[in-house]
Amino acid sequence: MTKVCRTIASLRQTQSALKAAGRSSALVPTMGALHDGHLALVTHAASLADAVIATIFVNPTQFGPNEDLDRYPRQEQADLDALQRAGVHAVFMPDVEEMYGSHDATRILMEGPALGLESDFRPHFFQGVATVVSRLLLASMCDIAVFGEKDYQQLLVIKRMVADLKIPVAIQGSPTVREADGLALSSRNAYLSEDERERAPELNRALQICRETLRSGASEADALAKAVAHVKAFDFRPDYIELRDAQTLGPLQDLGSARLLAAAWLGKTRLIDNIAV
Amino acid sequence: MTKVCRTIASLRQTQSALKAAGRSSALVPTMGALHDGHLALVTHAASLADAVIATIFVNPTQFGPNEDLDRYPRQEQADLDALQRAGVHAVFMPDVEEMYGSHDATRILMEGPALGLESDFRPHFFQGVATVVSRLLLASMCDIAVFGEKDYQQLLVIKRMVADLKIPVAIQGSPTVREADGLALSSRNAYLSEDERERAPELNRALQICRETLRSGASEADALAKAVAHVKAFDFRPDYIELRDAQTLGPLQDLGSARLLAAAWLGKTRLIDNIAV
Repeated sequence: MTKVCRTIASLRQTQSALKAAGRSSALVPTMGALHDGHLALVTHAASLADAVIATIFVNPTQFGPNEDLDRYPRQEQADLDALQRAGVHAVFMPDVEEMYGSHDATRILMEGPALGLESDFRPHFFQGVATVVSRLLLASMCDIAVFGEKDYQQLLVIKRMVADLKIPVAIQGSPTVREADGLALSSRNAYLSEDERERAPELNRALQICRETLRSGASEADALAKAVAHVKAFDFRPDYIELRDAQTLGPLQDLGSARLLAAAWLGKTRLIDNIAV
Repeated sequence: MTKVCRTIASLRQTQSALKAAGRSSALVPTMGALHDGHLALVTHAASLADAVIATIFVNPTQFGPNEDLDRYPRQEQADLDALQRAGVHAVFMPDVEEMYGSHDATRILMEGPALGLESDFRPHFFQGVATVVSRLLLASMCDIAVFGEKDYQQLLVIKRMVADLKIPVAIQGSPTVREADGLALSSRNAYLSEDERERAPELNRALQICRETLRSGASEADALAKAVAHVKAFDFRPDYIELRDAQTLGPLQDLGSARLLAAAWLGKTRLIDNIAV
């Protein structure tokens, strides 16, 4: 039976009981609106530890003033049912007051992998992510935490933060789960119209075209231009399509350790994707 | 025999051994140059837990570009001897690279109790303090950490940060230790010339005059003006002498829960002090 914890005190009791029984635990932080990508994170987490603790919290500090906080999909009971079927030991589901009290005065400020890409378009995003993830890690004190590679820059930001702050947890990335046509699973895919859904996989296709073009010996500029042209042909409005160092997200030194990352708007929906090169 | 840990890995081994033995621990973070005030923190910590872990680290991120990082007093062997005599279980003494690696990209940003007072004169101070203290707490994972009330604003900033970030540690304040003439013990007292040392207790005397004046029914403005006049008569250059709410450091609501805080220069040395009202 999956335990639902709505307070940090209850979460800590759950963790104490696990530790007293000598059981390791892995955290899977989510914003709910769960899909098969989240459930793959749970499966991955279950392979790494004795018990999985999932969290559901739509974190207000990572949304900008004109972003989709209010319309972000919420489906608490369906999410709990899915996590129970997936064999999760406990679900931490705090309200905003539990995570950010009325005297809250602390934020985590990130540079390094947080610079550029998403930050150029969502300036408060990684401050919000780092702020909430640090709290989830410290409230749960799990041995391991699992994050999807679909949010690749976020994964590197969290790894950097955990190393810098000396948080005693091991961060594990988990491969992106895709629809049969290549579209990366995302809670925001629910925003897409039928027509947009048909075109959505072209973002991933553009990244593959870019990779193939690079491998055939073309310049980075030519390969990236091809990807941009491809998504524009399907009426995407790209925020960025960039090649970066896969470990630091700094400027690319060597094509052998490159990551190709993209964000683009399809109508009113912003999609992101990334692949290894 | 006091164990000296120069790496986080070694500190974590020490903590694991304590936990395995069922022993609680209390952290006493210092910047070295230890005096009886620090040793009172150790004694306080020893009364709260089975083992005391002291840290010695002169944290560069809490010094401004024109402050005294380079000339801050350092006396490693004398400090280790004093901590050993005080019965400390272990001393964590990392170098800068161990606390801030070359890819370091994470800072803690504080508002609330960090606003005003010290921040008006040392704008990066509490970001540096919060950044290093969070790391020391998380590297050591002690049950308790003890900080002096002499740095009263710092104590409240750390309590706020620990509550906000959900760091699993209890923060305890420890009363200011004073010389017989009232001067609060500080590593920076070593900077004072003989003449300055004679005048130094007048900062504390000014705070007492202010408190007595308030208790006699005078207005806050009159009482504070008296304190400022007193230190100026002894050639101090005050940065601030202020009355604040003792819990939040926000504007004073009620004289019954007030704290009186001051910072002032005596020659090239900056002294701080505070008392309850």
